[in-house]
Amino acid sequence: MTGPRDEEGLDPESWDAMRALGHRMVDDMMGYLEQVRDRPAWQPVPDSAKAALDRPLPRLPEGAEQAYADFVTHVLPYPLGNIHPRFWGWVIGTGTPLGALAEMLGATMNPNVGGGDHGANYVERQVLEWCRELFGFPAGASGILVSGGSMANLVGLAVARNEVAGYDVRRLGVAAAPAPFTLYGSAEMHSSVQKAVELLGFGSEALRLAPVNAAFEVDVEALERMIAEDRAAGRRPLCIIGNAGTVNTGAIDDLARLADIAARERLWYHVDGAFGSLAVLDPELAPRLAGMERADSLAFDLHKWLYVPYEAGCTLVRRAAAHRDTFSLTPGYLAHAERGAAGGELWFSDYGIQLSRGFRALKVWMSFKEHGIDRYARLVRQNVDQARYLERLVENSPALELLAPVPLNIVCFRYRGALRDEAAIDALNRELLMQVHERGIAVPSNATLHGRFAIRVAITNHRSRREDFDLLVREVEAIGRELETRPAGAP
Amino acid sequence: MTGPRDEEGLDPESWDAMRALGHRMVDDMMGYLEQVRDRPAWQPVPDSAKAALDRPLPRLPEGAEQAYADFVTHVLPYPLGNIHPRFWGWVIGTGTPLGALAEMLGATMNPNVGGGDHGANYVERQVLEWCRELFGFPAGASGILVSGGSMANLVGLAVARNEVAGYDVRRLGVAAAPAPFTLYGSAEMHSSVQKAVELLGFGSEALRLAPVNAAFEVDVEALERMIAEDRAAGRRPLCIIGNAGTVNTGAIDDLARLADIAARERLWYHVDGAFGSLAVLDPELAPRLAGMERADSLAFDLHKWLYVPYEAGCTLVRRAAAHRDTFSLTPGYLAHAERGAAGGELWFSDYGIQLSRGFRALKVWMSFKEHGIDRYARLVRQNVDQARYLERLVENSPALELLAPVPLNIVCFRYRGALRDEAAIDALNRELLMQVHERGIAVPSNATLHGRFAIRVAITNHRSRREDFDLLVREVEAIGRELETRPAGAP
Repeated sequence: MTGPRDEEGLDPESWDAMRALGHRMVDDMMGYLEQVRDRPAWQPVPDSAKAALDRPLPRLPEGAEQAYADFVTHVLPYPLGNIHPRFWGWVIGTGTPLGALAEMLGATMNPNVGGGDHGANYVERQVLEWCRELFGFPAGASGILVSGGSMANLVGLAVARNEVAGYDVRRLGVAAAPAPFTLYGSAEMHSSVQKAVELLGFGSEALRLAPVNAAFEVDVEALERMIAEDRAAGRRPLCIIGNAGTVNTGAIDDLARLADIAARERLWYHVDGAFGSLAVLDPELAPRLAGMERADSLAFDLHKWLYVPYEAGCTLVRRAAAHRDTFSLTPGYLAHAERGAAGGELWFSDYGIQLSRGFRALKVWMSFKEHGIDRYARLVRQNVDQARYLERLVENSPALELLAPVPLNIVCFRYRGALRDEAAIDALNRELLMQVHERGIAVPSNATLHGRFAIRVAITNHRSRREDFDLLVREVEAIGRELETRPAGAP
Repeated sequence: MTGPRDEEGLDPESWDAMRALGHRMVDDMMGYLEQVRDRPAWQPVPDSAKAALDRPLPRLPEGAEQAYADFVTHVLPYPLGNIHPRFWGWVIGTGTPLGALAEMLGATMNPNVGGGDHGANYVERQVLEWCRELFGFPAGASGILVSGGSMANLVGLAVARNEVAGYDVRRLGVAAAPAPFTLYGSAEMHSSVQKAVELLGFGSEALRLAPVNAAFEVDVEALERMIAEDRAAGRRPLCIIGNAGTVNTGAIDDLARLADIAARERLWYHVDGAFGSLAVLDPELAPRLAGMERADSLAFDLHKWLYVPYEAGCTLVRRAAAHRDTFSLTPGYLAHAERGAAGGELWFSDYGIQLSRGFRALKVWMSFKEHGIDRYARLVRQNVDQARYLERLVENSPALELLAPVPLNIVCFRYRGALRDEAAIDALNRELLMQVHERGIAVPSNATLHGRFAIRVAITNHRSRREDFDLLVREVEAIGRELETRPAGAP
């Protein structure tokens, strides 16, 4: 039973040829990962590649083999670098070989995991249940996989807004509030929280930034005073945001005290645990996150400190009804049926912004099964131990200076040498960091701490070894010396 | 140079074993797609699979092979069905073999496409440039790939809010508006627009739903009157939303007249073109979308009518500065550098909600190159022709009844037979649709049109052939007859 000749499709003329191409891709990709340590941590995109990626829209078929050849030539050699053992920029995970293969499996089934009765929905439910268990959220708590931490914070704060406002915000909007809403967190909060606050219509002025102590943890008394002052001024406090690992230094707020305040003040308690929340896996680190399990909503990523490939973030919400009440919208064409493909009880579109949702649960599910959570716990701990190792290397170096405590997996430091002028030190370290990238040595990023430019090493990398930090320090010292002794104005 | 034995990672003990597993996966996945026509369009998830997907968190490694075996046994047999030639539910694309393989490639490189200088960013820029060209947006327009239509609408409406409000909404919020904001579209608008309006803090009451004509297109005069009345009542009209293909019937609003009104009234003009906008590829259909190219923002999906695997949506914004002004936020730790990995001019995180962004551009780029856009144009036309073919089949069937015009790729009909009671007809068609799913025949979804339950066939499927629609009609007639003649109360 073949179709008339005048109808066409996008399936290959030869499935065998597509299989052979797929085999070649697998070999190339596994080789690419196997050899990653031998390549530079980063290299710039050459003009030739930029030109090849600035071409007219292809009208005629070039074929799968050619598309792949162009990828191999112009794209594959120029990764961001986070697959490399010495990538420690921003907070970016490594990915794994099976995680990459799982993306092919998921995209072959190609489900929309927005709802209906099909296998992918049960995989996501399983992953969410495992996450609930990991973070000690109660049975009946809900969750949703999202693109990452920004979206996870947005989901949590959207529920906060609609749940605590005290009237029907979905129908009447923010302008119907009896008094201006306010939200509270530390000055070290991630910018995605501000982005969420802006999107939700609060305005960034509604976000109160309490100062931090010397350990970059929120000053809880100051935060309490801000709430009291706002109440006295007739404003309407809505939510406290706690940090389980700040982006700059990995500081962990006193999450239990924040939980107490939120309970006493009847505020929503959201915890941004993008990466730091995963420290809960290690029995020695877990106590420092005490109180996190009391959050009304918790945002975290699986593509950071669980090393799953992009994109995989998650929001857990303590009360499923509040979660659903914020997002559920079921017009006739999305009606949930009793049976058939539109049946089933799992409609994730009722718990988030997306209606079209890919199968990101699969790579998480397969990865958890591949490695078991105990191995992840050891790796989280290994990264923390590596941060402490680097901390000691910096402390033992006469030329380097630590710029912040190292509570978790982030080390902020700078080259100082014999320099004393702050502006000169900043300028030198900016240049130094760019050269560390350009020479392919490693990819730290930067932070600004008390106005000082810091080289920032954030370790969510399962390929890093202690020797990699030895190498980093050695090279930073060498480049620093070069720059320090370079005649002023020299290139 | 190997690391000390006490450090571990997530890379496989044997790369050869992982390569072999990858080859097996490729063979299985290509075979799965090659044979898809021979399997049921959908089948329920059995209790055994549900039980296998409701297990305790794995603490110890089960290994990659076991994880894959469990996927093959418990997940793979139960897809939503949109890879099947007879899946026409909701609006869901088919995916392609190369698209699935591209996901593996992208996840191997595993970049964060939020910013910095690396290959993936240039691939996304290329894809956005091609989209800009396809939709006739001016040079200098900006864009961003997103998860899908819901997010694409949210991005467009966020820019609308911040750009047209006339004050600093990001800082001051919606409550600082001098008058209540209002937005306008038809009663057939997609629910994701309402979701976006709620999220952005407007409140759903701000969304004015103009009635539609017999073709389910917006009644433009009624919409104009609503704007005038709101102005007279002191409200602040902000935005008009046009439909390039409504979800229920594929109706296309008069996009040029809406553009005129938006220009005259100085409102933002957003077009929701989730799938219908792609009809622009066909020279005969394109004129019906005239005016779409005048939109301030356009939302559309590549995972629907361009058959790319999930997730791939897009927003184009006419004025890049407005787009950037809504989303750009660059704290110190996201500072864009002059050189190095944090260099480059492409910071997509400045143009959307996500900071962590996967490499969804790759599957689009490779697919466009594989097939060429002319083939996509023919396939879009083929799906429209198939809808017309099905329309004729329905019209020629004495037992079936068409419930809406077929302007594009969607056919809404029902079984009527000899029945005259509306409630009985609705009930029969609900049962009929579930049986069409359960018997694995096909997966249409449903719509409610003038209060009537419609079986809804939305064709964004490159595997469908005319014979598939013959089969659908034959089976619907047969099941309808069965149900019609079944004694009342029989199972």
